Amino acid sequence: MTRTIVASATREVVIGFDQPFCVIGERINPTGRKKLAAEMIEGNFDTVKADALAQVAAGATMLDVNAGVTAVNPNETEPPLLVKTLGIVQDLVDVPLSIDSSVTAAIEAALSVAKGRPLVNSVTGEEEKLEAILPLCKKYDVPVVAISNDETGISEDPDVRFAVARKIVERAADYGIKPEDIVVDPLVMPIGAMGTAGKQVFALLHRLRHELKVNTTCGLSNISFGLPHRHGVNAGFIPMVIGAGMTSAIMNPCRPQEMEMVRAANVLNGTDPDCTNWIRTYRDYAPAAAGAPASAAPAAAAGGDGGRRRGGRAARRGA
Amino acid sequence: MTRTIVASATREVVIGFDQPFCVIGERINPTGRKKLAAEMIEGNFDTVKADALAQVAAGATMLDVNAGVTAVNPNETEPPLLVKTLGIVQDLVDVPLSIDSSVTAAIEAALSVAKGRPLVNSVTGEEEKLEAILPLCKKYDVPVVAISNDETGISEDPDVRFAVARKIVERAADYGIKPEDIVVDPLVMPIGAMGTAGKQVFALLHRLRHELKVNTTCGLSNISFGLPHRHGVNAGFIPMVIGAGMTSAIMNPCRPQEMEMVRAANVLNGTDPDCTNWIRTYRDYAPAAAGAPASAAPAAAAGGDGGRRRGGRAARRGA
Repeated sequence: MTRTIVASATREVVIGFDQPFCVIGERINPTGRKKLAAEMIEGNFDTVKADALAQVAAGATMLDVNAGVTAVNPNETEPPLLVKTLGIVQDLVDVPLSIDSSVTAAIEAALSVAKGRPLVNSVTGEEEKLEAILPLCKKYDVPVVAISNDETGISEDPDVRFAVARKIVERAADYGIKPEDIVVDPLVMPIGAMGTAGKQVFALLHRLRHELKVNTTCGLSNISFGLPHRHGVNAGFIPMVIGAGMTSAIMNPCRPQEMEMVRAANVLNGTDPDCTNWIRTYRDYAPAAAGAPASAAPAAAAGGDGGRRRGGRAARRGA
Repeated sequence: MTRTIVASATREVVIGFDQPFCVIGERINPTGRKKLAAEMIEGNFDTVKADALAQVAAGATMLDVNAGVTAVNPNETEPPLLVKTLGIVQDLVDVPLSIDSSVTAAIEAALSVAKGRPLVNSVTGEEEKLEAILPLCKKYDVPVVAISNDETGISEDPDVRFAVARKIVERAADYGIKPEDIVVDPLVMPIGAMGTAGKQVFALLHRLRHELKVNTTCGLSNISFGLPHRHGVNAGFIPMVIGAGMTSAIMNPCRPQEMEMVRAANVLNGTDPDCTNWIRTYRDYAPAAAGAPASAAPAAAAGGDGGRRRGGRAARRGA
């Protein structure tokens, strides 16, 4: 059984086929958030802190941390900013983190200060990336997200994307990194642009699980790009990818509809034993709340997901 | 490709792996609805008519019609009541109907007056049922729902339920009824009582599709029996069964959350080409409407599903 272990200083999480779906909160990311980028450049981390707390309260299993503010020379400016951001987040919440950067020096700097066992986000099939990132993953003994594109870009052919994933797993093995420490992102295309995008992903997930035996993730909301009522499409996509074998996703946990579908799929997939988390979260559910703003749900959600330790392991607080 | 064809006097619907999910509206059924039962006994069909119109407006593909009011002698009282109810519904709406009764004489009486090609609901693996229902299906050339239980009851072992389904398909063949006219209900257990209920169904759907090559259905809301916020569990179950190959369900189309997941799963499963139905239904979607009562949604839904003909066939109104 494939088990990818990630950890904060005090909490361990297992990503695996027999585990509750791992929700990696995507909010701490200045890409496309001009106001957040400006704040971070100024050294104001109020929004980062608020987003960290809100995502954990809403039921995030892990948090992705990205400090990619646009800069003239990201190789110089991004490493200290990512270190600063990561430090603030890991001091504030106890969920494991994902270190998200396209700048190798930033990933290395963050790894050097990260507590526990973070996830590196990401490596691709590009030679330069493989040679830069895989040695770091080996050195720090951490798992990595492997994105199925290479120098030729993102192929629309799922067989090519599978081949890229296989190449990364094989190259990682050359560095002594096991398949269980590779979390493959098969790349989700917008269904509005490519009608076969859903079926492609479902088929790829099956192959990744049964042939490469790896855990999987994706940028979930890509699927609904360009469509009206995107959250409805995202919500429907979640049970389908979980049923098809996906084990994690980078997504917004502050959306009650999407998190509700994660929890329902966990029940139906047999990873919420005795429906404990479902019952705890929804026993007092009032239908009228469905139309309330996103901030209305986390209170209930925090009691549900927050009270539970993944992987059946006790928290190692203070360890 | 398995195609189960059902029809009203004016509209044909194909149930199939490459078709939008077939939503069979469950509301016209006095079981557990004392007030409706009392009305129907009195000859008052106002609720039946309202339920028929509301379900079609909400996007039902077909309507189930059941007249099983509790009676001293259902063999005498149910046939005329089912005939009356069916007549009222088929004169009011143009979707195909499912004739639902445990009384063989009622099914036969309804078949004798039904227009188009209704679905018979249901036969089981019980000898007496097989011998009573299958000849009627052959005589009237209509498809039938095959429920996977027999004289020994409902087995908790999915292999036994599969064997019962296979037996029904084989017995139907003896009567000259093709597998494409058998819609198997693999029987959905409540997940709250049996934690493996979801995985059982997903595995059974795979076998039914690939080994028996039949269409499938279920009483969808059984899955959430006994749990809080049942609609959330039902909503999550829909994309999972569609992803696993289920092609229809007997369910309540007047629940916006469940219908939204049917539409999203159709998009993701590739049976809503160019997302046409999704865009038509949700292009003006306002998030606040999610908390509105069920009756708020059909207006949008009617424009979406009502404007579309299944199976790419033009409506044959007036034919």
